Amino acid sequence: MIKIGIIGYGYWGPNVARNFNETPGARVVAISDVDQRVLQRAEKLYPHVRTCTDCREILSSPEIDVVAIVTPVSSHFPLAKEALLNGKHIFIEKPFTSCVSEAEELIELAERRGLKIMVDHTFLFTGAVRKIKELIEGDVLGDLYYFDSIRINLGLFQKDVNVVWDLAPHDLSIMDYLFNRDPSAVMATGIAHFNNGLEDLAYITVYYPGNVIAHLNVNWLSPVKIRTTLIGGQKKMLVWNDLVPDEKIRVYDKGVEGLDGDSREKSYGLRVSYRSGDMWAPRVDVVEALKCEAAYFIECINCNVNPQNDGVAGLRVVRMLEAIVKSMRMGGALVPLSTPWKGIPGGTAWNSIDASLTT
Amino acid sequence: MIKIGIIGYGYWGPNVARNFNETPGARVVAISDVDQRVLQRAEKLYPHVRTCTDCREILSSPEIDVVAIVTPVSSHFPLAKEALLNGKHIFIEKPFTSCVSEAEELIELAERRGLKIMVDHTFLFTGAVRKIKELIEGDVLGDLYYFDSIRINLGLFQKDVNVVWDLAPHDLSIMDYLFNRDPSAVMATGIAHFNNGLEDLAYITVYYPGNVIAHLNVNWLSPVKIRTTLIGGQKKMLVWNDLVPDEKIRVYDKGVEGLDGDSREKSYGLRVSYRSGDMWAPRVDVVEALKCEAAYFIECINCNVNPQNDGVAGLRVVRMLEAIVKSMRMGGALVPLSTPWKGIPGGTAWNSIDASLTT
Amino acid sequence: MIKIGIIGYGYWGPNVARNFNETPGARVVAISDVDQRVLQRAEKLYPHVRTCTDCREILSSPEIDVVAIVTPVSSHFPLAKEALLNGKHIFIEKPFTSCVSEAEELIELAERRGLKIMVDHTFLFTGAVRKIKELIEGDVLGDLYYFDSIRINLGLFQKDVNVVWDLAPHDLSIMDYLFNRDPSAVMATGIAHFNNGLEDLAYITVYYPGNVIAHLNVNWLSPVKIRTTLIGGQKKMLVWNDLVPDEKIRVYDKGVEGLDGDSREKSYGLRVSYRSGDMWAPRVDVVEALKCEAAYFIECINCNVNPQNDGVAGLRVVRMLEAIVKSMRMGGALVPLSTPWKGIPGGTAWNSIDASLTT
Amino acid sequence: MIKIGIIGYGYWGPNVARNFNETPGARVVAISDVDQRVLQRAEKLYPHVRTCTDCREILSSPEIDVVAIVTPVSSHFPLAKEALLNGKHIFIEKPFTSCVSEAEELIELAERRGLKIMVDHTFLFTGAVRKIKELIEGDVLGDLYYFDSIRINLGLFQKDVNVVWDLAPHDLSIMDYLFNRDPSAVMATGIAHFNNGLEDLAYITVYYPGNVIAHLNVNWLSPVKIRTTLIGGQKKMLVWNDLVPDEKIRVYDKGVEGLDGDSREKSYGLRVSYRSGDMWAPRVDVVEALKCEAAYFIECINCNVNPQNDGVAGLRVVRMLEAIVKSMRMGGALVPLSTPWKGIPGGTAWNSIDASLTT
Repeated sequence: MIKIGIIGYGYWGPNVARNFNETPGARVVAISDVDQRVLQRAEKLYPHVRTCTDCREILSSPEIDVVAIVTPVSSHFPLAKEALLNGKHIFIEKPFTSCVSEAEELIELAERRGLKIMVDHTFLFTGAVRKIKELIEGDVLGDLYYFDSIRINLGLFQKDVNVVWDLAPHDLSIMDYLFNRDPSAVMATGIAHFNNGLEDLAYITVYYPGNVIAHLNVNWLSPVKIRTTLIGGQKKMLVWNDLVPDEKIRVYDKGVEGLDGDSREKSYGLRVSYRSGDMWAPRVDVVEALKCEAAYFIECINCNVNPQNDGVAGLRVVRMLEAIVKSMRMGGALVPLSTPWKGIPGGTAWNSIDASLTT
Repeated sequence: MIKIGIIGYGYWGPNVARNFNETPGARVVAISDVDQRVLQRAEKLYPHVRTCTDCREILSSPEIDVVAIVTPVSSHFPLAKEALLNGKHIFIEKPFTSCVSEAEELIELAERRGLKIMVDHTFLFTGAVRKIKELIEGDVLGDLYYFDSIRINLGLFQKDVNVVWDLAPHDLSIMDYLFNRDPSAVMATGIAHFNNGLEDLAYITVYYPGNVIAHLNVNWLSPVKIRTTLIGGQKKMLVWNDLVPDEKIRVYDKGVEGLDGDSREKSYGLRVSYRSGDMWAPRVDVVEALKCEAAYFIECINCNVNPQNDGVAGLRVVRMLEAIVKSMRMGGALVPLSTPWKGIPGGTAWNSIDASLTT
Repeated sequence: MIKIGIIGYGYWGPNVARNFNETPGARVVAISDVDQRVLQRAEKLYPHVRTCTDCREILSSPEIDVVAIVTPVSSHFPLAKEALLNGKHIFIEKPFTSCVSEAEELIELAERRGLKIMVDHTFLFTGAVRKIKELIEGDVLGDLYYFDSIRINLGLFQKDVNVVWDLAPHDLSIMDYLFNRDPSAVMATGIAHFNNGLEDLAYITVYYPGNVIAHLNVNWLSPVKIRTTLIGGQKKMLVWNDLVPDEKIRVYDKGVEGLDGDSREKSYGLRVSYRSGDMWAPRVDVVEALKCEAAYFIECINCNVNPQNDGVAGLRVVRMLEAIVKSMRMGGALVPLSTPWKGIPGGTAWNSIDASLTT
Repeated sequence: MIKIGIIGYGYWGPNVARNFNETPGARVVAISDVDQRVLQRAEKLYPHVRTCTDCREILSSPEIDVVAIVTPVSSHFPLAKEALLNGKHIFIEKPFTSCVSEAEELIELAERRGLKIMVDHTFLFTGAVRKIKELIEGDVLGDLYYFDSIRINLGLFQKDVNVVWDLAPHDLSIMDYLFNRDPSAVMATGIAHFNNGLEDLAYITVYYPGNVIAHLNVNWLSPVKIRTTLIGGQKKMLVWNDLVPDEKIRVYDKGVEGLDGDSREKSYGLRVSYRSGDMWAPRVDVVEALKCEAAYFIECINCNVNPQNDGVAGLRVVRMLEAIVKSMRMGGALVPLSTPWKGIPGGTAWNSIDASLTT
């Protein structure tokens, strides 16, 4: 039985608590939060769980195996460091840390101690993203042309991060998972409308090798909530609308292809041909992503393997966030991305784990 | 009776012909196109109109008062110049010309000859854009925060222009009309996936004085057609979806405001407050925009006033297109925009004309 | 060259005129309407076409081969009868006539004179209905369970017919085409809210042999326009939304099946099993239905075959309309439908004609 | 502290348990279900709550004040009767009972014992229905013309009830609440496609005094889920789409009015005039309806008042269900509804209670 302590019971913490609590082989034993009132909610729901306002009770408890850190990003590094130093695995909210150097230090620390880090890139565990991964790996879309995401709503302004650090980690972790390649450069524009100086909307372009481009539109000032991603491929194109209950993913048999040789169209000066066929919405599993993710983490710990969304994956996302903000502050300059930190090989995919567990 | 000759009867030409033909006080007398087959369609519809494959018959005909130029942009300048030299008013497709210098030459020529130029910025005459203008002018939205447009579809690749020159003129002319201020700089990223080297998708940021930002997402490779614009203001926010038959414009009583002084929220570290109220979809006139535009041009000629969408308006759009492509080719560099060409004062608004005509 | 005279140039007449005018082998030579102003619009568009306020000029003109009757339904019979007596083929708006006996008289008259009647069941010529027909005939849907149509909007109140006679003919003609079987009974409820006594909304149930049920919801008092039809089959189910530009038809791999024998589910008391799979939106041809219909009628005349939407098809629809109104006036009583009039065999399908023409 | 025992922990039971558990002044002390596995889920969530497979432990427990009956409808009467005989208040799922006589017996029994019955007409406590009530009571809609509801999806076939008993209680309870008047007659058509003889789709018309008509389309065989209700009034019309997260209610300034006297339109034969203006989506409270309902029931018990959704309200719905099925079995015959059972006056409105509690 793996015992879990949760630090932070605000917006997302209750979901983390509920899912780990329902995971076989795991048990939530302690919850801490600085706000006494939210702790009362936890106590009503989990009368058997210890609660405390001082998170050090969790960080230092010998009983606890895993610390789930569900706090603002600025506190991630000190809490995670202490947890690791105390020999605890960590489950940590996205983005992993406030900067690259912090992420690197945590990864090395965990590696030395033989501990696991899972960064909560929840979207990797949704039926939608897994289906898209399957379509890309199965070459259904063909060579990728672009990835275009709109993630906007009337946002919860945060006091310490801008809209990029708040919303873009979702897309960046999804892109990291789907594309399986490192971006070469980013550029971004954005604007802050209020006196805190934190951008409330931003437009981000990410360049990948092989003529692939990604664009993210993140905005805290939108009157409507939109979560739509387009992925264009040579063979097929895809629209993912995460806000509809059914048919989240639509695959279009539409496309454009460059013409080679001396086709008739070419003689008319056109160099492309079009295709417009059926649309197809594959069935997408409806599971709570966080439930799968929690179970996967427990398995990773039990099997002693690194999760796919480990510290290195978290680092790759933080590295991009840093570059994006740098570009934005330099008036949209192109910021090249060096090769990411390679000290630790990539984590073990969920699928592989599932297989290994059954043998 | 103002007599009109139309050059170019391909995709948009038939609409120009039909609308000028139905305008009181105007008559289409000649249509030319290099393609004999499309001329046959014109002849079946308008047996009384002269057709020709050589557009010089129209440019030189003493009978003709107005030449409507509905051809690819690369031919705009020579055709427009010859028409003006022959003393004819011109109605010309967007974008006005291929470069700023051509636009300036045409404006000066028309000015010297006392001729009118109308650039076909059709969207200015839609019920939706006119309603948005009314909401901005009436201070319903309050100070503007941002303008965010998505204009994507599986596009007609053109052999001589990229997606920016094809799709962005719509947004740029709308922004020019709505904002009534000159942008200070642009930057853009884009990519060409085919061997013609013309960008098929692009992301454009336009900076305006007063902390206003605009962003355009134009894409010829989208499996779905989207025509959606968000406009955020301090008081209210607006979504314009041009593809729905009803309720094209939705005004949201939602917003965020910076907090001054020592409010309670501020003590918690937040510097903004939220508001979320009703939504309201004002009735939008359903008229064919081109019909209004054609009638307005005939009035401008009869009253000897410059239209709002005159050559200078066309020039402002071309100037931005040039800067956007320059930024894109320089890897997304910020391109400042100098003060626009001021030789000729702005045109006379449609509303003013309507009023002047009734007196 | 078949010469066409059009009677009635109000709402739909201009479309009929335009499409016949563009049909190869046909020419519109005369248009009549009682309203002088609408005739002026016709004259501006077709300066070469004769116009008149007295439709007898068309009915008696020796030059004319086909009379298109695009007038209120109460005038259909006398106009059609005179046209047939004068040896002219007729193209006539839906619903065919005001009552069954009128329809029968016209069919017999046409039959004796060797003339063709086409009732303007336009929807049969849309890409959507043709695709649905293909899916049914190809047994993609399996045995039919139900047909459920919603056809509502803020309607044009008409002075002589109720909402059933105005809107239901669309659905009834589509059902007649798709199901290829005669209904056994109808029942309907409805209500009139204004002092003209004409129902402005109605709910119609149609029973077919083989446990198939159809339901129509027609309403002139709806604030929103809806044109949605569900068709449930044993294998697959389909939703047709006619108001969207793309993906009008969606086929769902969803279903329910009765269980036979001793399955495990049955032991739990359930007698059905569910299936929920992908959704698929087949590409639907986008053609103007009336254009196809006009060409088809000209072919039918040239080949001397009855069209599928001939007078007998029109009669079948009128017969149902009569029964529906009868049920509604009897407080929703079940009205059985006798076998339809069988004097004339069914018309020749569009597809067959196309084939016969190419040989 | 009011102590609650819950019988039935299948689909809806967990929601009832969670909401009563979170209600101040209430505590769930026991949960029973015949299925041991679902009880394990309850135990994991509520380790402090007693669970049992035999519901008689709950019905007879002296500790328990309220029994919540969340079981199939056929078991409602015996369970409710025993609970009342044992002196317990009851919270009971919709529909109240399987027939009118059972409902009457329970109401009389509760009345004699001074106990409260609340029938779980959850929708009355949603922000949407409360907003619609407000719009009707405030005469925003004007005189009512019609109520048209579509409630369809691929349904959970139930072994003992048809689609009418499963889905229509929602609409019937909403209509009962909104209209504040008794229906005069119903008629219904429907069909059973499987060998259990239970209708899987049905079309129901309900007549009200004052020329108001309601229509319900309920269907277990629909590939798509639809929850849309139109309400037409003389002044305004309303569309309620319960499946969208925002703007569930849209109020249209559209309408039709009968013309009196000698207006110009009337001389043209029209007897109505149209109005088409803005659309408006009022903000709707987002609260969990069941949470409000649970709190309201606890208040009703504490204040000793009958709830609005008391046994008599439940009876009115059952009475309509009986009549609907009767009509359907009689081939759609019109079934008049006698005056409902009047032994007990209507319950006390939620609003009134709120007010009374504050004094």
